[in-house]
Amino acid sequence: MSSPASVITCKAAVAWGAGQPLVIEEVEVSPPQPQEIRIKVVATSLCGSDVAAWESQNIFPRVFGHEAAGIVESVGEGVTEFKEGDHVLTLFTGECKMCRHCTSNKSNICQVLGLERNGVMHSDRKTRFSIRGNPVYHYLGVSSFSEYTVVHWGCAAKVSPTAPLEKICILSCGAATGLGASWNVANVSKGSNVAIFGLGTVGLSVAQGAKLRGASRVIGVDINPEKGEKAKDFGVNVYLNPKDYDEPIHEVIKRMTDGGADYCFECTGDTRVTTTALQSCCDGWGLTVTLGVPKAKPEIAVHYGLLLTGRTLRGSTFGGWRPKSDIPSLVDKYLNKEIVVDEFITHDLQFEDINRAFELMREGKCLRCVMHMPK
Amino acid sequence: MSSPASVITCKAAVAWGAGQPLVIEEVEVSPPQPQEIRIKVVATSLCGSDVAAWESQNIFPRVFGHEAAGIVESVGEGVTEFKEGDHVLTLFTGECKMCRHCTSNKSNICQVLGLERNGVMHSDRKTRFSIRGNPVYHYLGVSSFSEYTVVHWGCAAKVSPTAPLEKICILSCGAATGLGASWNVANVSKGSNVAIFGLGTVGLSVAQGAKLRGASRVIGVDINPEKGEKAKDFGVNVYLNPKDYDEPIHEVIKRMTDGGADYCFECTGDTRVTTTALQSCCDGWGLTVTLGVPKAKPEIAVHYGLLLTGRTLRGSTFGGWRPKSDIPSLVDKYLNKEIVVDEFITHDLQFEDINRAFELMREGKCLRCVMHMPK
Ligand SMILES: NC(=O)c1ccc[n+]([C@@H]2O[C@H](COP(=O)([O-])OP(=O)(O)OC[C@H]3O[C@@H](n4cnc5c(N)ncnc54)[C@H](O)[C@@H]3O)[C@@H](O)[C@H]2O)c1
Ligand SMILES: NC(=O)c1ccc[n+]([C@@H]2O[C@H](COP(=O)([O-])OP(=O)(O)OC[C@H]3O[C@@H](n4cnc5c(N)ncnc54)[C@H](O)[C@@H]3O)[C@@H](O)[C@H]2O)c1
Ligand SMILES: [Zn+2]
Ligand SMILES: [Zn+2]
Repeated sequence: MSSPASVITCKAAVAWGAGQPLVIEEVEVSPPQPQEIRIKVVATSLCGSDVAAWESQNIFPRVFGHEAAGIVESVGEGVTEFKEGDHVLTLFTGECKMCRHCTSNKSNICQVLGLERNGVMHSDRKTRFSIRGNPVYHYLGVSSFSEYTVVHWGCAAKVSPTAPLEKICILSCGAATGLGASWNVANVSKGSNVAIFGLGTVGLSVAQGAKLRGASRVIGVDINPEKGEKAKDFGVNVYLNPKDYDEPIHEVIKRMTDGGADYCFECTGDTRVTTTALQSCCDGWGLTVTLGVPKAKPEIAVHYGLLLTGRTLRGSTFGGWRPKSDIPSLVDKYLNKEIVVDEFITHDLQFEDINRAFELMREGKCLRCVMHMPK
Repeated sequence: MSSPASVITCKAAVAWGAGQPLVIEEVEVSPPQPQEIRIKVVATSLCGSDVAAWESQNIFPRVFGHEAAGIVESVGEGVTEFKEGDHVLTLFTGECKMCRHCTSNKSNICQVLGLERNGVMHSDRKTRFSIRGNPVYHYLGVSSFSEYTVVHWGCAAKVSPTAPLEKICILSCGAATGLGASWNVANVSKGSNVAIFGLGTVGLSVAQGAKLRGASRVIGVDINPEKGEKAKDFGVNVYLNPKDYDEPIHEVIKRMTDGGADYCFECTGDTRVTTTALQSCCDGWGLTVTLGVPKAKPEIAVHYGLLLTGRTLRGSTFGGWRPKSDIPSLVDKYLNKEIVVDEFITHDLQFEDINRAFELMREGKCLRCVMHMPK
């Protein structure tokens, strides 16, 4: 046993209010509590969900960030799976391996370590960050915009130590979510027509997944024409910008696909697009998978007639992957060059330039920005 | 070849306006056109969809009715599958056996003979009924509230001549729809928890189907307490009336099922109930199947968070049965006593008392009323 861990004081990017630039602050990071581990973050990327939560939620001060890779610094009481020095990806939705869902083999929605929306740790509803003794809240139980962070052991996956942490961090959320939506949730079939709404990292990972499954045509829809260019590299065959058409985009897609796509994916974070996606898929077996996390208008409007004629609407967290059980093998696929990951990283930034990442994301100028922590 | 058929003048129950009592009129029924058959209706029942369309649509004068059994009277040019004297069930959604959907093995949404919503025949967009030469419109390409009717050959299924037509008519829609929703659409699994909203013939057929699949608990929800009593006979284990609770009924169901039902079915025709059904099913694998045809508010409101945590929303026409291919075997199952049908028929009426059926249905006093045609 190593000697008990003590408080670490380090730099974190703290959000003090909705939409306000983050401030690099000295924060105190408490030792890991029972069943927890403390991680030295090596690289963390910025996901659309961080931006949406930062713009729309009201839990502050807060450390955002949930797509990250790092090295275990210390482990709390009762943790047997991890030891100091292990390479890990953080997990914004955990896997306790014991609840009815974790043991079901048909769900990745752990009932103990699922999405934590209140800015605290799952176990004691408290925080592990503070500034001069005042609590600083968490985000999704991860909070990776900090040199050190504490997570439940169920919210980290041990990965091959040979994988470059500054690349595989994006498998901790965005890139894995899209692949999983294609493979696990939709189970895209060979020869099918696929339409993807939103060509960020999530949408383009869906495209990668669909292409690897042998989809014959992948239509990509985005209101930002810059995304259309980049999309070709990930398997999008046809780019559509709804602004280029006088008629609703679902009519265009239905015409191009002789009645509608076999699979549609909403990867925008706009619930109105989910409605459009459902309108764009075909009678009989058309499936729409919605992935976005909206910052407004949480209700999706669904015309009953679309369902009656055989369509299905489904959602998923983290592409249906059981986070601890499945993610290490995705890292292995990356190492074996079976999937691409590096190509999603359009910007490498120093941690202190994190606000630049938020700007780039809001302006639609990046796919993933990876922040490198000070050595 | 029999001699060419001529116009038949017979009695039909004609709806002259929304919600107005039907009037038994003398109508002219034209001979079957190419690819059509003319049927002598023997028995027809009243389904919730007839009532909703009669109350809310504006195509008049019109002959409603789409749940029926009869005997082929004559066949039009090019019809090879049927001959005079064949026993048939009418089909409100047809099967052309040639389109991309009919040949797909994964859809029952025929692209040629699907739901006909404009009150005309699929082929020439005209009617086969008239009163003194003025057109009388159809309903779903069937219009069985008439002594004789004309349907496309793809909108009838030939069935065993030994089956009692005055019973099996309800397999032409309601009873088959519910069984199919259980078996084909949801694929209810052994030991599962099922919640059914709306305990009419459709909902209770879902219950029968779920029980036959070995569901361990079937919860039935209806705002009409009389339906609760009857429901026990069809396998409903627990009856809930939302009016008996101060809290939302989905909270009650979630508590009873330790997190939510595995499968929920909306069989009410109220899209708000679809929202409730989705709220009543569980994280991870909860599936809601919506069957109702609303007369108002066609949009279903779905909170994205219910989908993100792994729920699926699906609909179907006619329980996913390929109508011509599958329905004859359901009639055989009835003859072999593998499924019950007679028990849904709470009232046998003479055709001229058809308005009584509409009253009983609106007042919630029946499951199925079967109208017997004059001999
Ligand atoms: N379900 C999950 O587990 C999960 C995981 C990660 C991310 N997400 C969510 O997925 C979404 C995408 O994430 P991302 O990181 O790829 O974000 P992103 O911002 O990089 O990409 C979103 C894309 O959608 C486009 N877009 C926005 N509105 C549009 C519209 N009306 N029509 C067409 N395109 C539109 C944008 O131009 C952008 O290219 C976000 O809502 C995010 O919160 C969900
Ligand atoms: N999808 C299809 O192919 C298909 C086929 C047949 C019928 N339908 C539709 O299915 C629905 C049911 O048909 P049915 O013939 O059994 O009708 P029905 O009128 O006999 O049964 C409907 C039941 O729902 C109950 N109900 C109404 N509002 C409710 C609420 N808010 N909460 C709980 N219960 C409520 C009523 O009391 C009634 O018992 C109708 O909407 C009908 O149009 C669809
Ligand atoms: Zn769990
Ligand atoms: Zn067809």
